[in-house]
Amino acid sequence: MGTIAIGVGIVAGLAALAGALGVAIVVKGTLEGITRQPELKGQLQTVMFIGIPLVEAVPIIAIVISILLYGQM
Amino acid sequence: MGTIAIGVGIVAGLAALAGALGVAIVVKGTLEGITRQPELKGQLQTVMFIGIPLVEAVPIIAIVISILLYGQM
Amino acid sequence: MGTIAIGVGIVAGLAALAGALGVAIVVKGTLEGITRQPELKGQLQTVMFIGIPLVEAVPIIAIVISILLYGQM
Amino acid sequence: MGTIAIGVGIVAGLAALAGALGVAIVVKGTLEGITRQPELKGQLQTVMFIGIPLVEAVPIIAIVISILLYGQM
Amino acid sequence: MGTIAIGVGIVAGLAALAGALGVAIVVKGTLEGITRQPELKGQLQTVMFIGIPLVEAVPIIAIVISILLYGQM
Repeated sequence: MGTIAIGVGIVAGLAALAGALGVAIVVKGTLEGITRQPELKGQLQTVMFIGIPLVEAVPIIAIVISILLYGQM
Repeated sequence: MGTIAIGVGIVAGLAALAGALGVAIVVKGTLEGITRQPELKGQLQTVMFIGIPLVEAVPIIAIVISILLYGQM
Repeated sequence: MGTIAIGVGIVAGLAALAGALGVAIVVKGTLEGITRQPELKGQLQTVMFIGIPLVEAVPIIAIVISILLYGQM
Repeated sequence: MGTIAIGVGIVAGLAALAGALGVAIVVKGTLEGITRQPELKGQLQTVMFIGIPLVEAVPIIAIVISILLYGQM
Repeated sequence: MGTIAIGVGIVAGLAALAGALGVAIVVKGTLEGITRQPELKGQLQTVMFIGIPLVEAVPIIAIVISILLYGQM
């Protein structure tokens, strides 16, 4: 049971790292764009809102896997 | 059974990290491009939508492997 | 059997990280190129499509090794 | 037998990471060069095709070591 | 015997990562140099061919160490 906990920890932790860094890179790109071309705010935010779910897709699958593993403990 | 969980955790976690960072790098590149050349938005988004599945190819294989491993528990 | 699962997890997970980041770097380079010189889109995409299989070569060998390991469980 | 699998996983996984990131860096450099000086495409691709096997040298040795390890299982 | 395999995996895998990233950075620098000053191609390639063995020195020592470890299994 304890080794399952190690698995849960690795997957949930890396998923958190992945989601956070991925979304941060996208938001940073959006902020840099708005800084240079404030009039493009709308378009850049649209691409940001398209990009974030695409970034989160695999981390969320990983979180589901961590919950499934947790259910095995 | 527990050590298989560690394997599941490593593969699903690294796949999440891979997918999220890879997609984020591509979306950031698109945002930077739209900022500099807003009139290229369509072409840049086309390349983004070609690139994202190519980025996700190996992470999704890894998620499938993690599900196969999970099935062995 | 369980420790083999850890090996499968490490190789498939790192292969996912490798493939995703490698392809993302290439796609980002293509996006930057199209932004600066939109008229080179065709040539840049050609180099992108030459580069992506070269990037994926070792990750795919690693995925094959992970499947071989999985077959040993 | 199982712990050898962990060794196989580490070496093949890191070799994948190495090969993919290394080749991606070289392809990105080529894309940047073609963007700035499209007329140098031929020469830049020549250096790319000289560079890629040099990048892959140690990853491929590592893949051979992973296969030798696999043969010990 | 199995734990030696983990050691072989770590050293050979990290050597691959080191060699590949190091050589890739050198080749990328050469590509950037040729892009800016195409007439220096010969000199830049000469420096590249001096630099690559220097980059590979420690990775190759590490590969030798991994082979020595492998011989202990």
